[in-house]
Amino acid sequence: MKTSIATVSISGELPEKLEAIAKAGFDGVEIFENDFLAFDGSPGDVGKMVRDHGLEITLFQPFRDFEGMPASHRQRTFDRAERKFDVMQELGTDLVLVCSNVSPVSLGGIDRAAADFYELGERAAKRGLRVGYEALAWGKHINDHRDAWEIVRRAGHSNVGLILDSFHTLSRKIDINSIRSIPKDKIFIVQLADAPLIDMDLLYWSRHFRNMPGEGDLSVTDFTAAVAATGYDGYFSLEIFNDQFRGGQARSIAADGHRSLIYLGDQVRRAPSTESLTVAAMPNRASVEGVGFVEFSTDEEDAADLIGILRTLGFRKTAAHRSKKVSIFQQGDIRLIVNTEEKGFANASFAVHGTSAYAMALIVDDAKQAFARAEALDAEPFSQPVAAGEVEIPAIRGVGGGLIYLLDDKSDLGRFLEIDFLPAEDEAEITPAHLLRIDHVAQTVAYDEMLTWLLFYTSIFQTHKTPMVDIIDPAGVVRSQVIENASGSLRITLNGAENRRTLAGHFIAEKFGSGIQHLAFDTNDIFATAEALRKNGFRPLHISPNYYGDVEARFGLDPELTERLKAENILYDRDEHGEYFQLYSGTYGEGFFFEIVERRNYRGYGAPNAIFRIAALKKQMRPEGLPKK
Amino acid sequence: MKTSIATVSISGELPEKLEAIAKAGFDGVEIFENDFLAFDGSPGDVGKMVRDHGLEITLFQPFRDFEGMPASHRQRTFDRAERKFDVMQELGTDLVLVCSNVSPVSLGGIDRAAADFYELGERAAKRGLRVGYEALAWGKHINDHRDAWEIVRRAGHSNVGLILDSFHTLSRKIDINSIRSIPKDKIFIVQLADAPLIDMDLLYWSRHFRNMPGEGDLSVTDFTAAVAATGYDGYFSLEIFNDQFRGGQARSIAADGHRSLIYLGDQVRRAPSTESLTVAAMPNRASVEGVGFVEFSTDEEDAADLIGILRTLGFRKTAAHRSKKVSIFQQGDIRLIVNTEEKGFANASFAVHGTSAYAMALIVDDAKQAFARAEALDAEPFSQPVAAGEVEIPAIRGVGGGLIYLLDDKSDLGRFLEIDFLPAEDEAEITPAHLLRIDHVAQTVAYDEMLTWLLFYTSIFQTHKTPMVDIIDPAGVVRSQVIENASGSLRITLNGAENRRTLAGHFIAEKFGSGIQHLAFDTNDIFATAEALRKNGFRPLHISPNYYGDVEARFGLDPELTERLKAENILYDRDEHGEYFQLYSGTYGEGFFFEIVERRNYRGYGAPNAIFRIAALKKQMRPEGLPKK
Repeated sequence: MKTSIATVSISGELPEKLEAIAKAGFDGVEIFENDFLAFDGSPGDVGKMVRDHGLEITLFQPFRDFEGMPASHRQRTFDRAERKFDVMQELGTDLVLVCSNVSPVSLGGIDRAAADFYELGERAAKRGLRVGYEALAWGKHINDHRDAWEIVRRAGHSNVGLILDSFHTLSRKIDINSIRSIPKDKIFIVQLADAPLIDMDLLYWSRHFRNMPGEGDLSVTDFTAAVAATGYDGYFSLEIFNDQFRGGQARSIAADGHRSLIYLGDQVRRAPSTESLTVAAMPNRASVEGVGFVEFSTDEEDAADLIGILRTLGFRKTAAHRSKKVSIFQQGDIRLIVNTEEKGFANASFAVHGTSAYAMALIVDDAKQAFARAEALDAEPFSQPVAAGEVEIPAIRGVGGGLIYLLDDKSDLGRFLEIDFLPAEDEAEITPAHLLRIDHVAQTVAYDEMLTWLLFYTSIFQTHKTPMVDIIDPAGVVRSQVIENASGSLRITLNGAENRRTLAGHFIAEKFGSGIQHLAFDTNDIFATAEALRKNGFRPLHISPNYYGDVEARFGLDPELTERLKAENILYDRDEHGEYFQLYSGTYGEGFFFEIVERRNYRGYGAPNAIFRIAALKKQMRPEGLPKK
Repeated sequence: MKTSIATVSISGELPEKLEAIAKAGFDGVEIFENDFLAFDGSPGDVGKMVRDHGLEITLFQPFRDFEGMPASHRQRTFDRAERKFDVMQELGTDLVLVCSNVSPVSLGGIDRAAADFYELGERAAKRGLRVGYEALAWGKHINDHRDAWEIVRRAGHSNVGLILDSFHTLSRKIDINSIRSIPKDKIFIVQLADAPLIDMDLLYWSRHFRNMPGEGDLSVTDFTAAVAATGYDGYFSLEIFNDQFRGGQARSIAADGHRSLIYLGDQVRRAPSTESLTVAAMPNRASVEGVGFVEFSTDEEDAADLIGILRTLGFRKTAAHRSKKVSIFQQGDIRLIVNTEEKGFANASFAVHGTSAYAMALIVDDAKQAFARAEALDAEPFSQPVAAGEVEIPAIRGVGGGLIYLLDDKSDLGRFLEIDFLPAEDEAEITPAHLLRIDHVAQTVAYDEMLTWLLFYTSIFQTHKTPMVDIIDPAGVVRSQVIENASGSLRITLNGAENRRTLAGHFIAEKFGSGIQHLAFDTNDIFATAEALRKNGFRPLHISPNYYGDVEARFGLDPELTERLKAENILYDRDEHGEYFQLYSGTYGEGFFFEIVERRNYRGYGAPNAIFRIAALKKQMRPEGLPKK
């Protein structure tokens, strides 16, 4: 599968774009005309620059308002084409994209358009060039690839072919099986883009909301499988118009694009009749059985506070590392590691981010395979020296720089715990709080990194994303989206902050980057847990009494239950499957906190309660004055 | 006209919202339920807080999914209502908003809904409360105010009335004249919101894109006039859901809201049959005849550079202030004032923003009237001491803190120049460059201030706004919108920067705020001007040669013309009215620059050229290294 991306998809000036595209591993690049026009160098210079990066120019685009012009405009239109051909020859590319005419003066007519393309094909052939025709979803007369294909067929010229674009086809809900009957040699190139499903004007949607395959809601995989079924094995090229990407970092947008194509190729090669597609095999997406541990990097001083909170939550120290200043605190199947080493990655992370949950271990079906898949999907491997005889766990870097360890299965975790650690006895007086396992890990990320995280998790692990939800913080909107697997053994909530005055935004600003902002633990009995926490001196987050009057009326709760919820500061929600109870700690440091949930078949994450939880957290943070590092 | 705003419209926690709303001058406030629920105080506390601010609670909202529920849900629905009534009585408000049912189980049926409302009216009456019914544009059965009104009519209960909302009516393009036949006493309250015209899902549009009346494209004025024609003179209340506002500063959003209502009232009172509306009369929008001068604040050192550039542009020093370090440079009808005073407002501005064009004078039909209108529209007046005998010019603060002087007419300007200034002779050798007048003033503003500026200019001056255009900077999208009047004697372009890596964003970041980033001057002969500039040693902005090949092909230009454009670095555009020529200087300081344009009946601003101009400016700025203050 040959990969390409249009220069318009990423930010920066042309040299910066090309460097990012090459570095991300693409094979080719579409030169978007404006990027070339704004560049202060000749077409030859641009061509050389592209080739010096080891890239091929897959396409020059766009050539607009060509076919079906009235006689008065026709000559000028061909003159314009000849000028583009001049540039293409100097650039060193043989393919131009002609998008369907949107001019109010264009006349329409399949045969008229076919005749125009025949003539253009003749002119292109003289120069050894080729012309690709693409139906824009908002073309005046041609807005369906089936009609564009009919024009190409009738033009009957070997230098004229079809260009398919997933957005133009999928946005109009055109049957993708109509692609399967197109001869592969008449498909000159295939462009790909995804988009979130929002019902709006097609042009506006296309100009502002496109994103990388797998980041949106369109069936780009099915589209690509239909293309592959024709035997097509040419370039798949990303053409993404997105305001967020235009303002983002060229390198990370290009890297996302490359990952999206690799992931797409892997999905498509598993579909029937796609054997022509040359895609390297890679292991299946890793099945995640649970979170083995979450590790905090901290120092001795902060660790005392952190451990104090963990104990109020019913955690006991159960093990200490044989050679490092690393302890394990455990309850049920939850292991929290506190690392106060003064060297190594944890300490480096502490130096930048302060005390934080900088690593988590995922228990997967096969750690080696999961690691191989992650590497195939451009994830950055991580390793650091371990003492002789100690267990080395494969690990990858998350998007923001945090770590994800990959543990084989529970016995592998057992081996790590047994070999590297010695059992410890916690002498503190702690009442067990019935916490069973990690329900979800909540990561706070910069809004413009959300899609990167989403693609990272969904492409490497067997997970799916849920629809994006707006969470209202008093200081702005926070976008929230969940990555989860079918069994619920992995649940990650991503909260994207757009401004630093929100709780999430403050966390990112103070932590100098994305990170885990809260951990939610499961209990089978929220009230028994609340009682145990009280005995341990835990201070729950205070929820406004007004909330309880509403929740009682909204769900028709027994007033006695409402009173218990209110007394314990427990939030309540319900969906069509069951009930949900949530109990929060206050914040620690720059906004880290803990949550305890009881799920009675409930499948969501209490989104309707988020506004009240955030208001309460912000209120609780305020009296403490300025945040401490 | 009684003004109100829903707490959901602005950012912050409830006390902060109320303070901002009161400070902006509103009479009342709608309490949005979530704001109350998240607040840690009793309903009585909230009511007291509102009244302590001198505000009235106009409405408690929303009460959802009420009418037409099946028997199995009906009792719970009424129980929910009773709970809201409890809260309302404690809050101290008598009106609740019931929005049309969106529940999938709701049954529909006009008479069923009317019966439900009759019963709710009975219950409300017992407590002295009132119920208002509003048709949501996406209600399951009721999504048209005409149907909602039929339900209210059939309910026939004096405690049940209609709530109108401009967004719900205008978004569905419902005939607003249908409002004129509704009895005014059955309209319990009127909510107002505007929105940009983008074709999209109504709920998504409403949740994210609403804005203040006058800031969008809906005919809120006609809607309000139709309401006023009924004789309604109750509250007009803003209910705005907007992501940008949620993340903005509560004070400025509230101030915009108040200005929008004052402006709306003024427009509506001029419509026929609206005499029942109690709106204080104010002068007409000021007609602007031109820009009298633009004033730069600077110091002696920077002034030398600035004056050097002005001279290369063909400006001569023509006058010096009698008592201050202030000089006038003139060419044609363009006056640029250079102020190097070491005290006063100009100097204070210089201390914060560095050298900048901090003030402009608009020549209006009647300065006193214009000033009175600006004050009526919440603009902040400005004055500072002048020496005895000198002219005091009325002035207002712009949104960002810059100044706008209001000059009566040209003779008034003449008087100011004559009394305060002495003629001066510029001894430098300067070739006149045929510059005639200021074509447009380009202001760069933070993106979230754009609507504020737009409302400021359009409400005070006889101007209109043009559609927003996306300008592509290599580092992100810049939104551009023009404020202009019919004669073209006032043209202001607003460029809203979303990130600081764009040229516009850099300017704002370095200047610590919005400001004038460039001035465009008119010439009648761009080539003669270019020649004169060359003689003066002016260094034009270098445009990539690639641009000219494209422009020649695109417009079918005579190659000789293309060569001249290229030789002089002149950009070219054309619209259905005529041709446009643009010549730019490089940047000065943090990104300030000059433009010279020749309009041959052309009406736009060269938006298609912006991408090339920005790329060239950024390239030119780079070698200079770090920006100097």
